[in-house]
Amino acid sequence: MPSNFMNSTRDHKFILKEWLDLNAVLTTERFKDGYTLDDIDFILDNALKGAKEVVAPSCEEADQIGSIYEDGHAYMPESCKEAYHFIQQNGFCSSNKNKNDPSAVPLCVMWSMMEYMIGANPHLGTILAGPAAAGEIIEEFGSDYLKDLYLEKMFSGEWTATMCLTEPAAGSDVGDMTTKAYPTDEPGVYHVKGTKCFISHAENGVCDNTIHLVLARIEGAAPGTRGLSLFIIPQYLSDTEGNLLEHNDVSVSGIEHKLGLKGNPTCVLNFGEENKCIAYLLGDPPGKDGRGAGMRQMFRVMNEERLMTGHGALSLSAVAYHNAAAYCQERIQGRPFTNPKGDRVPIIQHEDVRRMLMFQKAHVEVFRAMIINNFYLLDLAYNSSDPELAEKCSALTEVNIPIIKAYCSDMAIECISEALQCYGGYGFSEEYPIAELYRDCRIYPIWEGTNFIQSMDLAGRKFTMAKGKVFATWLQEIVDFINSNQNAASFEKEFTIMMDALKNYQEILNTLKGYMGEGKVQLMPLYSTRILHATAKLLGGKLILDQALIAKKKMDELGSDHFDYPFYNGKVASARFYVRNIVPEIETTLKIFKDGDTSALDVVEEAFFV
Amino acid sequence: MPSNFMNSTRDHKFILKEWLDLNAVLTTERFKDGYTLDDIDFILDNALKGAKEVVAPSCEEADQIGSIYEDGHAYMPESCKEAYHFIQQNGFCSSNKNKNDPSAVPLCVMWSMMEYMIGANPHLGTILAGPAAAGEIIEEFGSDYLKDLYLEKMFSGEWTATMCLTEPAAGSDVGDMTTKAYPTDEPGVYHVKGTKCFISHAENGVCDNTIHLVLARIEGAAPGTRGLSLFIIPQYLSDTEGNLLEHNDVSVSGIEHKLGLKGNPTCVLNFGEENKCIAYLLGDPPGKDGRGAGMRQMFRVMNEERLMTGHGALSLSAVAYHNAAAYCQERIQGRPFTNPKGDRVPIIQHEDVRRMLMFQKAHVEVFRAMIINNFYLLDLAYNSSDPELAEKCSALTEVNIPIIKAYCSDMAIECISEALQCYGGYGFSEEYPIAELYRDCRIYPIWEGTNFIQSMDLAGRKFTMAKGKVFATWLQEIVDFINSNQNAASFEKEFTIMMDALKNYQEILNTLKGYMGEGKVQLMPLYSTRILHATAKLLGGKLILDQALIAKKKMDELGSDHFDYPFYNGKVASARFYVRNIVPEIETTLKIFKDGDTSALDVVEEAFFV
Repeated sequence: MPSNFMNSTRDHKFILKEWLDLNAVLTTERFKDGYTLDDIDFILDNALKGAKEVVAPSCEEADQIGSIYEDGHAYMPESCKEAYHFIQQNGFCSSNKNKNDPSAVPLCVMWSMMEYMIGANPHLGTILAGPAAAGEIIEEFGSDYLKDLYLEKMFSGEWTATMCLTEPAAGSDVGDMTTKAYPTDEPGVYHVKGTKCFISHAENGVCDNTIHLVLARIEGAAPGTRGLSLFIIPQYLSDTEGNLLEHNDVSVSGIEHKLGLKGNPTCVLNFGEENKCIAYLLGDPPGKDGRGAGMRQMFRVMNEERLMTGHGALSLSAVAYHNAAAYCQERIQGRPFTNPKGDRVPIIQHEDVRRMLMFQKAHVEVFRAMIINNFYLLDLAYNSSDPELAEKCSALTEVNIPIIKAYCSDMAIECISEALQCYGGYGFSEEYPIAELYRDCRIYPIWEGTNFIQSMDLAGRKFTMAKGKVFATWLQEIVDFINSNQNAASFEKEFTIMMDALKNYQEILNTLKGYMGEGKVQLMPLYSTRILHATAKLLGGKLILDQALIAKKKMDELGSDHFDYPFYNGKVASARFYVRNIVPEIETTLKIFKDGDTSALDVVEEAFFV
Repeated sequence: MPSNFMNSTRDHKFILKEWLDLNAVLTTERFKDGYTLDDIDFILDNALKGAKEVVAPSCEEADQIGSIYEDGHAYMPESCKEAYHFIQQNGFCSSNKNKNDPSAVPLCVMWSMMEYMIGANPHLGTILAGPAAAGEIIEEFGSDYLKDLYLEKMFSGEWTATMCLTEPAAGSDVGDMTTKAYPTDEPGVYHVKGTKCFISHAENGVCDNTIHLVLARIEGAAPGTRGLSLFIIPQYLSDTEGNLLEHNDVSVSGIEHKLGLKGNPTCVLNFGEENKCIAYLLGDPPGKDGRGAGMRQMFRVMNEERLMTGHGALSLSAVAYHNAAAYCQERIQGRPFTNPKGDRVPIIQHEDVRRMLMFQKAHVEVFRAMIINNFYLLDLAYNSSDPELAEKCSALTEVNIPIIKAYCSDMAIECISEALQCYGGYGFSEEYPIAELYRDCRIYPIWEGTNFIQSMDLAGRKFTMAKGKVFATWLQEIVDFINSNQNAASFEKEFTIMMDALKNYQEILNTLKGYMGEGKVQLMPLYSTRILHATAKLLGGKLILDQALIAKKKMDELGSDHFDYPFYNGKVASARFYVRNIVPEIETTLKIFKDGDTSALDVVEEAFFV
């Protein structure tokens, strides 16, 4: 992959400088002394340069050698160490979460840069994002002592961090975990005992220390998720100067042999095999009702991890698309359909290849619009001095997050599969970059809450959150957009489709309400995956058309000879393609949902085994 | 994979004994002295037993060790040798094509057995099917000398065979190949010079000799596909007793490092590096018009190779589905949605898991219905004493073949991806069987003519073949089926959907005609992939409902206590699920096609590179 790595900053520049009002973030108290809009080009170009020159070359070893388990320890391949520290030391990742760092950039800028980093080496995804997430949790819920111990190391990325939820017998059902915490004589210090699995980068050989955020149940706490507490369990104990002391009682008993992301050591992690695993409780222990604060605290990170998963899907889809487009321009084969006696042409001129490339281009831009816009909303939610605006932005992200996680990861598989198909037989060869991307991206629909869990978060939780007000705010944004642009010149057809899609979507919501009212509650989990996809297509259509309205004006202003014309022409084409080829699928979802087939539930279970 | 390998003969027994009129084939001249309907159960059970006990254990080495390239030669891993010869020697593959073999079974029975074999070890796919296909070509087009040299070895499977079309610079565009053939003093014997790539099993270490069917251009023949001739180029020359003589001037210069099917050595093959590569021409050399018979001869095999590719997709999807279902029954996690305080349950009880399993089950049964029915039609086409029936069956297969190749291989990816998702985090682990299946199956949309080529074969060739009569015959079967069953008790809803789907499909055809009439010819290749999928869904709905009509009767007759009730109940559920959840997508295809968006063609090419 690295040798073929490519990407472009152009769409990010458009998003940050022409589409979103980034100044609304840059002028907040937090960022007003930092970068300005004029710096964005340099920031992005510099990030892409680093991704290409330093990060991308580390990817081949990550996949080919893969992570190593030796003498009871797990390691990433050597190449990843340099790439990791390059990213952290140059301000592309963790340091941006440090509120005291004057050179920090908003989330929407940081995650634009991170698209190049993750695209250049996806094996680094979780190890990069871990420390800042842990830093934020410690900042919010930790004691001063814990802050002294860890904050600096987290925001510098010198040490990394993990999230430990899953156990061998408790994956999606977090509440059934069996890891236990026992109080010691020291307040806030516990001994933890248990086993966690699927822990990315628990040991890595890249950082000198790893801080585990571990969900466990303090003896006597309530059952289920409500009884869980959140602990910090370092790999090595340390003093407040950051000096490492003895190794804690935490060990890796093995790593997974995986389909993809092979350089990312996915560990089985044992805590307290020698009954002396030191764990620091975040916040207070459960009171008399047995309720712990763990799940709520963990969700603070979980939302960003979910966004990061969608972002990983975007990053890999973008790399696959750029490589496929370059290949299709280079590869000469066949003659034009409209001129079969003409010369052989680059395959990018063939109609079906164009369709496959447009499918990828439009989806990549939809994913990116969803994700960067959402980080922009988070920037406003966290930093705006207008509490009403902050609250509204926060509400919008609540709905966006499960959509981004599930839709981008589901569709990335299709996009990368189309990229692979563009290469013909060479797509199946590991000599070209797509085969690895195809393997790597398959984890995203599973990670950080399966896509079914996301769909139930949307349909079961977000639809009804705050008595439906949160979702109503979200939907109203789309209604307003369509209403105010339905006569937009040269987009009449697209807005007619969007108007129909909106009506159909609203009928999907009514149908769901109807079923719930009739007590047909199982129809929610049976159809929630499809409802999430319909929701995503409506949002995707809105965002990409919103961009196209700007692009069309620019395109007309600049004229077709201008060097930047192809970019704007391409933005308009992406929007037309997405709205006219993808958005109409919402109607089918409505039809099928209204029909309400339950054969999958009605069939006798034994039918699956004959 | 092998340790988890499972499958069932039940659906094949239903297809061969209850759905199709197999006696119409078994009573033909060719088969009347062979097996009867009563033998089918034993034949299938015996094949599955062999697949499980002998073939499946060979798969792990095939994937883990992969094919080997050493000292200028390519090999499959050792385990595959035993499995290959077991299959050939026990009558599961090649020998069934031998018209003189009294124990041969019809194609529809042979390919039922082969589903277990390929499912047990997909790396063996092409090496198994090669020799019989070559045998049939030699039987039809070869001289008596060539028949003496090769027929016995081909039908016994003692030697294998390949098809050599693709060259490094000529893949989908076969006509641009540069391999040349030069006459020698001996009539019918040529010297061939050129390089072919992506040749499966060109060398394999499994068989003592490999016979290459090679397309090449005799010096002076016409350009393009029409100037090509077909040659037999053996790896070793031999005498008519089957004794090997000297090695021919054919060498393997490397094998591909691939995403999947790693045990299948995909070779680069050099002919005539020493200018003495002996090649036997099949049929006559080009006449004065420069036209060779090569493409026509090759298509004799190509059609079966395409069916075999769809069959591979079916075989892998079936194994993935059976494994996923078993895992979901075993894996305990979460509580029922309708009873959140109840006990933890096997995940097969969760609604979304049910949906994923039904999606796989319904598709696997649709693939199998398409494929086994098509082999049945070929059995009648080749063997029926009624020429009118034979012609009709042949016509139906012409339309079915591109559908089967492309639809089954495209949808297999989605099915196996759903199977992987059923496993949660374990699906991404290579310790479970799905990861390999997910990698292996990705080749099928590329092999034997990419799926775009299939879609153009359908929309560009089969729709208009014999002035449209062939396709009219095909479509009339579906029209008749829907008309005569529209009031079928308990399937009213399904037939209403089919009736709508048929109307929408006919409008797709009219829309296509309209575009062609208006000179918008590029809309054919731009939409042909989607047109093929719509065609497949209509066919799939018909076949699975046809099966359900029989199953419903049986189900009602037997009652729910009967041991066989779950099978029939499951068949009805598959049909309902497919018709109500998949077939309605045809309407979206119509809408999108009628809208006729051409943004993928209109966009400036540079837009893909900014």
